[in-house]
Amino acid sequence: MKVEHINPFLKAVASTFSTMLGAKSKRGELSLGDPRKRKFPISGIIGLSGEASGMVVINLSEEVAMKAASKLLMEEQTKINDDVIDAVGELANMIAGQAKAELTEYNLSISLPSVVTGEGHEVRFPSNNPPLCVPFETDLGPLFLEVGFETAEVAAGA
Amino acid sequence: MKVEHINPFLKAVASTFSTMLGAKSKRGELSLGDPRKRKFPISGIIGLSGEASGMVVINLSEEVAMKAASKLLMEEQTKINDDVIDAVGELANMIAGQAKAELTEYNLSISLPSVVTGEGHEVRFPSNNPPLCVPFETDLGPLFLEVGFETAEVAAGA
Repeated sequence: MKVEHINPFLKAVASTFSTMLGAKSKRGELSLGDPRKRKFPISGIIGLSGEASGMVVINLSEEVAMKAASKLLMEEQTKINDDVIDAVGELANMIAGQAKAELTEYNLSISLPSVVTGEGHEVRFPSNNPPLCVPFETDLGPLFLEVGFETAEVAAGA
Repeated sequence: MKVEHINPFLKAVASTFSTMLGAKSKRGELSLGDPRKRKFPISGIIGLSGEASGMVVINLSEEVAMKAASKLLMEEQTKINDDVIDAVGELANMIAGQAKAELTEYNLSISLPSVVTGEGHEVRFPSNNPPLCVPFETDLGPLFLEVGFETAEVAAGA
């Protein structure tokens, strides 16, 4: 994927955290490739497609997931229940939705989200479409963003 | 999701296994809802979007993944390496692609696939969009298909 395509996703994380969660966020260094082991046990996953194909993964600790869900639901969450899982999917949905709104030239639409849980789970991308990976420090704690994105010309030629 | 929307996915599994893997498959009973614990440690995940939003999960044992990869790559695979992971993503891609071709009224396109690994991982769908779940017995072994699918009118009203 091209580095320029990551920017709408970086902005989307910052703006979602700021607007929806009232939390500041600061991004760390971009890296290309598949880190295999997610650091955290919860991953929100959502696909984008149209004249490009993408996949967004937000990887969170239980603590960050519960804090984010508490803000979104306006009710303190103290364990990983269906509401917290739904909130993580919704967070992925909001981030993908905002990025989509900046990538208008690709006529993207977004899939249903899914949320993976499990200590030590790995989410892998196709080895010919390695994702860009970006850690964030936020007021709610750390999170890890991964985005795979390929324009239709590239996908068709792959 | 509506039961009628699962049929293109059921046909897509059967036809992908038959055409691409030279394997017969037989579907078991349909159930609605989220079984939480996947039975198997490998899940291929791919999104669909357009005038509907979907997510397809194929859940496989290591054995089925290696056998499928061996067929696709025309080379015996004996461990879960990048090639096998890529093959599982490609399998999800082929199944979603065939289903998409039958669901033309929704102008669907498909996202990048991702593949989750990890004993005991769970893939959860939004609780207001529970997936339809279908076990398959195939010549390569058992697999488990889950499909979430919501038409745009439903999604907009959600």
